[in-house]
Amino acid sequence: MYETIKTELQDGILTLILNRPDKMNAYTEKMSEELLHFYKEVNHNDNVRVIVVTGSGRAFCAGMDLSVGGSTFSSEQSSEEYRDLGGQVSLQVYEVNKPVIAAINGPAVGIGMTMTLPMDIRIVKKDAKIGFVFGRRGIGPEASSGWFLPRLVGIGKALEWTLTGRYIPTAEAVEAGLMQYESEDPLAKAYEIAREIVENTAATSNSFTRQLLWKMLGQEHPQASHLVESKFLHWAGQNDDADEGIQSFIDKRKAAFPMKVSELPNFFE
Amino acid sequence: MYETIKTELQDGILTLILNRPDKMNAYTEKMSEELLHFYKEVNHNDNVRVIVVTGSGRAFCAGMDLSVGGSTFSSEQSSEEYRDLGGQVSLQVYEVNKPVIAAINGPAVGIGMTMTLPMDIRIVKKDAKIGFVFGRRGIGPEASSGWFLPRLVGIGKALEWTLTGRYIPTAEAVEAGLMQYESEDPLAKAYEIAREIVENTAATSNSFTRQLLWKMLGQEHPQASHLVESKFLHWAGQNDDADEGIQSFIDKRKAAFPMKVSELPNFFE
Amino acid sequence: MYETIKTELQDGILTLILNRPDKMNAYTEKMSEELLHFYKEVNHNDNVRVIVVTGSGRAFCAGMDLSVGGSTFSSEQSSEEYRDLGGQVSLQVYEVNKPVIAAINGPAVGIGMTMTLPMDIRIVKKDAKIGFVFGRRGIGPEASSGWFLPRLVGIGKALEWTLTGRYIPTAEAVEAGLMQYESEDPLAKAYEIAREIVENTAATSNSFTRQLLWKMLGQEHPQASHLVESKFLHWAGQNDDADEGIQSFIDKRKAAFPMKVSELPNFFE
Repeated sequence: MYETIKTELQDGILTLILNRPDKMNAYTEKMSEELLHFYKEVNHNDNVRVIVVTGSGRAFCAGMDLSVGGSTFSSEQSSEEYRDLGGQVSLQVYEVNKPVIAAINGPAVGIGMTMTLPMDIRIVKKDAKIGFVFGRRGIGPEASSGWFLPRLVGIGKALEWTLTGRYIPTAEAVEAGLMQYESEDPLAKAYEIAREIVENTAATSNSFTRQLLWKMLGQEHPQASHLVESKFLHWAGQNDDADEGIQSFIDKRKAAFPMKVSELPNFFE
Repeated sequence: MYETIKTELQDGILTLILNRPDKMNAYTEKMSEELLHFYKEVNHNDNVRVIVVTGSGRAFCAGMDLSVGGSTFSSEQSSEEYRDLGGQVSLQVYEVNKPVIAAINGPAVGIGMTMTLPMDIRIVKKDAKIGFVFGRRGIGPEASSGWFLPRLVGIGKALEWTLTGRYIPTAEAVEAGLMQYESEDPLAKAYEIAREIVENTAATSNSFTRQLLWKMLGQEHPQASHLVESKFLHWAGQNDDADEGIQSFIDKRKAAFPMKVSELPNFFE
Repeated sequence: MYETIKTELQDGILTLILNRPDKMNAYTEKMSEELLHFYKEVNHNDNVRVIVVTGSGRAFCAGMDLSVGGSTFSSEQSSEEYRDLGGQVSLQVYEVNKPVIAAINGPAVGIGMTMTLPMDIRIVKKDAKIGFVFGRRGIGPEASSGWFLPRLVGIGKALEWTLTGRYIPTAEAVEAGLMQYESEDPLAKAYEIAREIVENTAATSNSFTRQLLWKMLGQEHPQASHLVESKFLHWAGQNDDADEGIQSFIDKRKAAFPMKVSELPNFFE
């Protein structure tokens, strides 16, 4: 049982809820540990086709819990040992083998915002307060956002937002590509997309695609993608999901893909 | 003579036509071989200044020819030997030494869409059916699209489009940067841009620029670009195209660049 | 004393003025040397919090000074020795440890445009003439723009703009992310943003953030960012800026950050 998060699974869609509503779901060491545990475990659960992440109550996540005051970021670990909590979670989300959708239901600042960057689709509540405010707190980008943010919105927007630390109007966030949608009800929109994925696509395809796109961001030459795509296509060509996908297309009926994510080999080792 | 494609050359603009109109120009092994042959040869043809790629009939390319059914993607080659057909062509387009413009005159799905990603400028027919539909067929990204797509539209849009496999409204595709223009007559718009290039720019400049921008995407540090730009500028400074370009600017007349692409050294070896 | 540029420092904002107004601030070897000198020195000046770059008179920078005619780009140096002037400056701007804002107050073409790409925020005068015109002069991208431009606007726009060499409407430049703002008075807008940065953010945070975002563009894996972010956060957690940032937030007052950029260790060696 988790203390700071909770999970609900229905029809292949797992909802992960940040669950400290009286604290606007502020981030703690405990929450970080629980998220890390969750994202590791979920990779082995074939019943989960899509993950939707949201917050309990009116906020998504108000950032780091600052209730211990100025010493929030001080650590007894050495500089060599110390690892940013949010970054550890981001690197685990990067390795998740299912699509992850963020339903940002209210304010999301600091780690509340950066934790969503390694997710695949972000939907924000219209006019929610969002921003990369580190510079205004005397700290810096965390959760590997130095790597993720420019790849989502381009280096220009990334620099302007982080150097000013200003709040970002949600319409501007959509325009820039940080958010894919703004909505009065981000959770409903997230479920709509999640259902579209579950009902229409193969779990094996999506698992491969998610890993491919993130990992090819770091590759120098398109040949890297060609080689791993070739291995996947060769494998898919011998397996039942491609067979069903093509046959259902020819038959003009909805596909019923038989395979599980755990049947997909790891093509990225 | 090609069977599945045809080419026409006029005023320095080579039109490459996908030519299986009764099959909506669906992609076959033969088409892949012919495209590969074409893109290799065209690098040696100084009469070609710009390449425009379009489809015969009402479609651009309806994707892989699925007429053999569920076994479309099965191969007798081993996993080590097998290479995705579309990816081989994409890697060759990446090496082309002239600008390539896609005039997407109608439906473009699967390989019909991904084959255009290594081209330089994409123009789509307004409201044409386009999409990255692999997930709905139980297969995955091909044609090195795992590398190309996020570099065109950012990782956010790339993930949303490929994970849902949904059709993409052409206006959204323009907004996201996948398409540079939508048009009622994409071929006419492509020729307009091609003529602007032929009439105003130096073939040597454009050949270098195209290769530079694609190749610098994979470089870690801006110094890589500085070094190769320096070599090109040093060479250009001793040659006739720069001389004519600057003199014509001072004279306020249109430049008539004398040099051919084959005179350009390979600065990327 | 500089000949081709001048500088003014007020309230932590250093204005760097390209200062050949009778020549539309056209770029010369002298200007390049002076810019290089300036950007090296400014890294050691703690009184400078933000740099604003603009042009004297009605132009920002009309590009390379072509008054010597066709031989502008010819060099007596060997191909091995020759280094593009603009590229040397760009690589120095890339290493600057303060935010840099370009106030593009009028025409900016060629090096006038590419010199702004390694800056952090670009504001353009509405309807100013801007473009990447190398192809129309028989030369090629300079100032490391082959690396910078696609990372700002995506590879699609970068290719279209450089291959056609056409002028770019300023609204299109904003839409594409090349410019963050267009304004009737770009210098006033630049000062507004500069003041927002000076008054609200920690110099140490901004210096780290600027370097992080640019440098992580070249990294293959988000772990690279995680490791350097962790080192910075560990350091910040023991220092006064984070303490003041968090305490002022709790106290609901404006922060008064005590630290200087020179107190920030180099986390990128």
